[in-house]
Amino acid sequence: MELSIVPAVSPDIDPAFPLHVGGKIEVRPTVRIRDAEGLALAYTPGVGRVSAAIAAHPELADEYTWRSNVVAVVTDGTAVLGLGDIGPSAALPVMEGKALLFKEFGGIDAVPICLDTKDVDEIVETVVRLAPSFGGINLEDISAPRCFEIEQRLQERLDLPVFHDDQHGTAIVVLAALRNAAKVTGRQLSDLRVVVSGAGAAGVAVSRIIVEAGIGDIAVADSKGIIHLGRGDLNGVKQLLAGDTNTSGYSGSIEEALKGADVLIGVSAGQIPEEAVASMAPDSIVFALANPDPEVHPEVARKHARVVATGRSDFPNQINNVLAFPGIFRGALAVRATRITEGMKLAAAEALAGTVGDQLSEEWIVPSPFDPFVAETVAKAVSAAARAEGVARR
Amino acid sequence: MELSIVPAVSPDIDPAFPLHVGGKIEVRPTVRIRDAEGLALAYTPGVGRVSAAIAAHPELADEYTWRSNVVAVVTDGTAVLGLGDIGPSAALPVMEGKALLFKEFGGIDAVPICLDTKDVDEIVETVVRLAPSFGGINLEDISAPRCFEIEQRLQERLDLPVFHDDQHGTAIVVLAALRNAAKVTGRQLSDLRVVVSGAGAAGVAVSRIIVEAGIGDIAVADSKGIIHLGRGDLNGVKQLLAGDTNTSGYSGSIEEALKGADVLIGVSAGQIPEEAVASMAPDSIVFALANPDPEVHPEVARKHARVVATGRSDFPNQINNVLAFPGIFRGALAVRATRITEGMKLAAAEALAGTVGDQLSEEWIVPSPFDPFVAETVAKAVSAAARAEGVARR
Repeated sequence: MELSIVPAVSPDIDPAFPLHVGGKIEVRPTVRIRDAEGLALAYTPGVGRVSAAIAAHPELADEYTWRSNVVAVVTDGTAVLGLGDIGPSAALPVMEGKALLFKEFGGIDAVPICLDTKDVDEIVETVVRLAPSFGGINLEDISAPRCFEIEQRLQERLDLPVFHDDQHGTAIVVLAALRNAAKVTGRQLSDLRVVVSGAGAAGVAVSRIIVEAGIGDIAVADSKGIIHLGRGDLNGVKQLLAGDTNTSGYSGSIEEALKGADVLIGVSAGQIPEEAVASMAPDSIVFALANPDPEVHPEVARKHARVVATGRSDFPNQINNVLAFPGIFRGALAVRATRITEGMKLAAAEALAGTVGDQLSEEWIVPSPFDPFVAETVAKAVSAAARAEGVARR
Repeated sequence: MELSIVPAVSPDIDPAFPLHVGGKIEVRPTVRIRDAEGLALAYTPGVGRVSAAIAAHPELADEYTWRSNVVAVVTDGTAVLGLGDIGPSAALPVMEGKALLFKEFGGIDAVPICLDTKDVDEIVETVVRLAPSFGGINLEDISAPRCFEIEQRLQERLDLPVFHDDQHGTAIVVLAALRNAAKVTGRQLSDLRVVVSGAGAAGVAVSRIIVEAGIGDIAVADSKGIIHLGRGDLNGVKQLLAGDTNTSGYSGSIEEALKGADVLIGVSAGQIPEEAVASMAPDSIVFALANPDPEVHPEVARKHARVVATGRSDFPNQINNVLAFPGIFRGALAVRATRITEGMKLAAAEALAGTVGDQLSEEWIVPSPFDPFVAETVAKAVSAAARAEGVARR
């Protein structure tokens, strides 16, 4: 989870501000030109021969430009962290941070693209027009339900990985953590009854991926209670979700659904009372991912649940998207995948869960973000899945 | 000039190809995150406080992001070098090369943006939507006359430097060279009678800047002969140009206009016969800038003209845009200029001419592209002009 609501602090006393002066990324040459000869190869006339070759054989652009390793980090600034609709300029530091993480953890070049439009059609058209410059599109901090349509339409229009990280990055890390939490508590994924609090970008994607992973009994709650087909106020995405989940047929409050549930996954700012957590099944699993204020305080949750995870770095089991997106794009770009399939996401989650290895315990269900093998392991699994699913171009 | 038509050579024997594998640029972090504490400053939750501050005070984006030092190098791939309309993917190596030069010579971060549309409205709208991410827009290799409208409309819509380098970069270097050529031959700029061969992006911009620099008597030729108001086939840009130049009222062939002319500036692929060069005034000045085949071979031109310049690095006096654009953007971005005015361009040309200093001679009217002081000198002049013209924001 990447939610974070923190009151603005004076630049004078907050070390985040001096760190951000001039930004956090730069573009650097990977070849040096020291003389006229070098200039004549990297630029005219030499570059003209490379361009002519690409004009004749367009696929050569993946070989002779940076494109096959570069991702556009695209936002409209409508759902930035926990700050909401703060606009494209204010979103830029976050997108730069994302670009920094792409390089640092995945070796991928990423370019922040903050768009001055909130119109779905305009966002889609703009990204389609930009696509020749990029090997992949990472959508970021775009509000729901617009994010669902934007992602889907871009996937239909482009033969490139298009990945809304707030949805799928979160979902993949949650699924990996849930796999390990089930293992620690001696259960099968398919036996779990799950309650998801939140039906925005993350809630929808988390619910979908755990359905795909074999969990059928999921009650998803939005601010009006459990989503079910009898409700007349559901948008298209929530209707689909209600149809695919909720096999137990819950229709009331989240507290009701939590009684006897095995798992709570909180991906909204809504608070969950201690009594509701206490009413869950024995050895319950609580992921309270809202940031900085989890849906239930982890120390309170721990009194009743066997495994507790949050989005915070100061408690055990931090569910952090950086565990997923660098490896996913690295794996997809390495084989020049034309899309990121559900199978690639499931493979990423499984590989990520596996990186924990012998360290697995109630307090160590996900690896550290600084584990240098995580991205590599995830990337290999994603590349293999892309090949298996026939979306790899090499 | 950045024109270059070179037949594609086999990747096996052409060193340009291995040099281009994987591209020529990368995005790198300028801050390192080594631990959870660093991550919490550069990314959540620290970055959220910076974003919140920018949301409250939008101008802070120039301080706390990379934006004020980053330029989008935008093309639609319609007029790439001398290759013509080769499309956005094939244009990418050239835009990467440009980005490399921006960093190497101007210390500016630049991002290649190759657009998958040739529609003027779509290009304008796309760039306007991208603008929050960038401090300036360098238009590149967009065909005439579309390039004129795109640039003008973007300048009207954006409070950012928007600069079509094929026009103005070329024009600035030509004017600087012409200043020095006039000096070497003991003449005043305003006394020169000039013939310009070519009325595309470069020809139009060169003609305009030398008008602004005080030269009134300019005959501009397109493929149908000298442009004059009596011609019924002129587009709007050429009509304006015909009105502003051609005080001698030429209306026939370029050969006719060249008789007794002081200066020939060739910015098209059209060849000029030796006899026409021989018919020019004594101590004539010939800039034959088509690449790789100048309008008249420099050795032939030198038999009749006192000063000869080309676009090639293997003859004296190379007119190379890299002498201008890094310093121009550096100077404009340093003061956060809202646009690049005619005054800033003239100041750039004057400063660039001045960098030659005591080395000035018939064979040394422009500095070497590798002179490390050129960009700095141009940048200072451009910043000062921006302040003087009231377009500097700091």
